[in-house]
Amino acid sequence: MMMSDGAGRKDVVLLAHGGGGLMTRKLIEEVILGELENPILKRMDDAACISIAETELAMTTDSYVIDPVFFPGGDIGYLAVCGTVNDLAMQGAEPRFLSLALIIEEGFRIDDLKRIIGSVGKAARSSGVSIVTGDTKVIERSRRYGGPDAALSAMAGGQAGGEWRAGEPGIFLNTTGIGARLAGVDVSVTNAKPGDVIIITGTMGDHGMAIMNTREGLKLSSDLASDVQPLWSLIKPVLDAVPDIHCMRDPTRGGVAAAVCDIARSSGVCIRLSEKSLPVKPEVLGSCSILGLDPLNVANEGKAILVCAEKDLVVVLEILRAHPAGRESCAIGKVIDAPGGMVLLETTAGGERIVDVPTGEDLPRIC
Amino acid sequence: MMMSDGAGRKDVVLLAHGGGGLMTRKLIEEVILGELENPILKRMDDAACISIAETELAMTTDSYVIDPVFFPGGDIGYLAVCGTVNDLAMQGAEPRFLSLALIIEEGFRIDDLKRIIGSVGKAARSSGVSIVTGDTKVIERSRRYGGPDAALSAMAGGQAGGEWRAGEPGIFLNTTGIGARLAGVDVSVTNAKPGDVIIITGTMGDHGMAIMNTREGLKLSSDLASDVQPLWSLIKPVLDAVPDIHCMRDPTRGGVAAAVCDIARSSGVCIRLSEKSLPVKPEVLGSCSILGLDPLNVANEGKAILVCAEKDLVVVLEILRAHPAGRESCAIGKVIDAPGGMVLLETTAGGERIVDVPTGEDLPRIC
Repeated sequence: MMMSDGAGRKDVVLLAHGGGGLMTRKLIEEVILGELENPILKRMDDAACISIAETELAMTTDSYVIDPVFFPGGDIGYLAVCGTVNDLAMQGAEPRFLSLALIIEEGFRIDDLKRIIGSVGKAARSSGVSIVTGDTKVIERSRRYGGPDAALSAMAGGQAGGEWRAGEPGIFLNTTGIGARLAGVDVSVTNAKPGDVIIITGTMGDHGMAIMNTREGLKLSSDLASDVQPLWSLIKPVLDAVPDIHCMRDPTRGGVAAAVCDIARSSGVCIRLSEKSLPVKPEVLGSCSILGLDPLNVANEGKAILVCAEKDLVVVLEILRAHPAGRESCAIGKVIDAPGGMVLLETTAGGERIVDVPTGEDLPRIC
Repeated sequence: MMMSDGAGRKDVVLLAHGGGGLMTRKLIEEVILGELENPILKRMDDAACISIAETELAMTTDSYVIDPVFFPGGDIGYLAVCGTVNDLAMQGAEPRFLSLALIIEEGFRIDDLKRIIGSVGKAARSSGVSIVTGDTKVIERSRRYGGPDAALSAMAGGQAGGEWRAGEPGIFLNTTGIGARLAGVDVSVTNAKPGDVIIITGTMGDHGMAIMNTREGLKLSSDLASDVQPLWSLIKPVLDAVPDIHCMRDPTRGGVAAAVCDIARSSGVCIRLSEKSLPVKPEVLGSCSILGLDPLNVANEGKAILVCAEKDLVVVLEILRAHPAGRESCAIGKVIDAPGGMVLLETTAGGERIVDVPTGEDLPRIC
């Protein structure tokens, strides 16, 4: 019944759009190519021909399954480009080329798809990357979250866009990126050394709390917005001035705790964070306390953790703070000479506790 | 109810496996790294560091949503590597590096995941590529196909692997590939010229009919198996001997018809295929007639269409036929001097009809 109802609709994605035939071509030409226009993508060959003068490259892939797809501060399209570009940046690589693969549930509104692709284009332009190759698949309608009734009414309803609707058809994006590594830079999570300082480029937990607030309809604060943003233009001047940055990591899933624990473990060092130095917006802190969450574990999508020698701290902070994405950069801890692999938090109360990697996650489908 | 039932199970993938914490690391270390082992992947940085001496590269991406994930002749893992490697090969590029991104529905059996990753590893080794970077996401259980009851019983049941089970948790793979383009080769779907010959490297429709037979439980023939296989080792010697191959395309979704129509349209030429030259296995032809399908429209996953000058035909066929994957290679048509963009089929009955790109698709989720 749902299928016969949906089959004739022109405003939603249909299974036939994923068949590789005329309807696939029409969808790509009308919804995707215009927004992402570039000469390589336009050829629509099975593989894109790209030229990179450098031989030392970085490659990274991420799928985005975030729910809801639209949220304060961004959407799944903007997130998918920023996330992948930021993973390249964290490796000291200038983002160059991206692929974009869509898996769309039938019934997904074409207007929403256009909006997402628009965000992909905007994020790509502001990150200096080209989307050079892509793929579109359509899968049968599932009934995630809502039961059949919720799915049917959502399908038939055509509610206004922009807010989260349980039981709606979903979309997954994959972006895979290629970047050119800066010569003379060797950042790796294995490079932290005793005496190094830990820097964060801004406040913690904005993305995760914005998603949770939207998804659960908590209305905890109207000011919660995701920090999703591309980071290469923030990071590049730092690497140009201080090629000897030891580690970089963007604290996404698992938050700052997961990123810092990963550095401590991979480098075999002990890290001590200072709770009073950790930057958190009051509205994030407030929402976290209500929900019993630790901002250290909440995801970010526009922040970086940097580890460098203490002698470089002043210049690194100066460069970071000169960029709009890094104004609130600050040192949050040190690598100390103690048994390796552990992260300690000096609490505001004057105590000390161990910071752990979360086992599972507080909030599924955060990115 | 389903969740509390599943939460403690050790034999299925749980939402927490996608959280980016300890359980994600454990899943990756225990199920994935061993099969795909290589020094780059093992570093588990956010982006992989790769070196490519060549500067002219090819990049391609594909998501795989095939249902069922296991089928005669292969599975989604083998398909995901072959499909991406073949898209690079069709651009005259030697496959080098692949990314692998998994989107898994909670409740998916870990044994099935192991089997799929095993196939990814096998296909990567036989194609000469390394999987250098990856991503794992877990999404909530949907109730695709079956209603809630089917989903629940499938979740609780733990039926024997290897056959298709409606309403089971699913998995999607994305593979993105980087290859190095052979110097002096310029294949493109825009390069076909009047007088050129059209070659296919084997029989048509094996993949699509194998999937349909399995999925619908048709039991049309026990001999139907997918042709999924990597093609670079077949294609490279041809390009080495005849760099002037004009076009290559693997006839996947939409079959040979879609591939040849695409070449005709993109090159602005007219192509005439000869029905009596088209190689089709008797069991595929038989199943197609029963279902009213045209083998020209049925997907392949281990075949290529090549277009070259007539003077090169003999040597190209000789090289193709010397390879196990190309034994049944043959010429199936010609580019003729006639109004452009059209594909004609000379029928066995002596008539002529227009071959069209399918509008939607006969069979969803074929790859």
